[in-house]
Amino acid sequence: MHFRYHVFFCLNEREPPDDCCARHGSIALQAYAKDRVKQLGLAGAGKVRINKAGCLDRCAQGPCMVVYPEGVWYTYVDRHDIDEIIESHLVGGKVVERLRLP
Amino acid sequence: MHFRYHVFFCLNEREPPDDCCARHGSIALQAYAKDRVKQLGLAGAGKVRINKAGCLDRCAQGPCMVVYPEGVWYTYVDRHDIDEIIESHLVGGKVVERLRLP
Repeated sequence: MHFRYHVFFCLNEREPPDDCCARHGSIALQAYAKDRVKQLGLAGAGKVRINKAGCLDRCAQGPCMVVYPEGVWYTYVDRHDIDEIIESHLVGGKVVERLRLP
Repeated sequence: MHFRYHVFFCLNEREPPDDCCARHGSIALQAYAKDRVKQLGLAGAGKVRINKAGCLDRCAQGPCMVVYPEGVWYTYVDRHDIDEIIESHLVGGKVVERLRLP
């Protein structure tokens, strides 16, 4: 694997009344996650990549992200949730069940 | 896995003299791949998703895409290469070694 964890945040924007991940803070929270991973020394080949993505096609369950190669999908609300995903999953290897999408 | 194959194309654009995947046709070829997968009836949950992504951080080896959950990285030149990746890997499950990134 080129990256141990490759994380994709949906940053898609849709016009109202359609909902979209961007309306739930995904743009700012992807940037936050990327910075946080860098601060922790986790960014880079063999480690973690926090990526922007277009629509991940799970709008109704968003905002959403997916962690590969595991294929674990998460939703999130705020920085607290992002911190928990980073610390538990990306550092500790333990899936955060309370934020996991079915 | 929510998608059997989740494919991310780097569509990132950088200012010259920096090179970028967008300058090698990635935007048009991602759209082509997405249409082709839809035409073949492969698109959707449990099947294939062709996704837009921001910079995948392999600019020097681009244009690039990655297929998860396998974590197989490809470069490509034109529609012929995209067709081969779809038919061999996404339909047949066989990696296209000649286009694979190390």
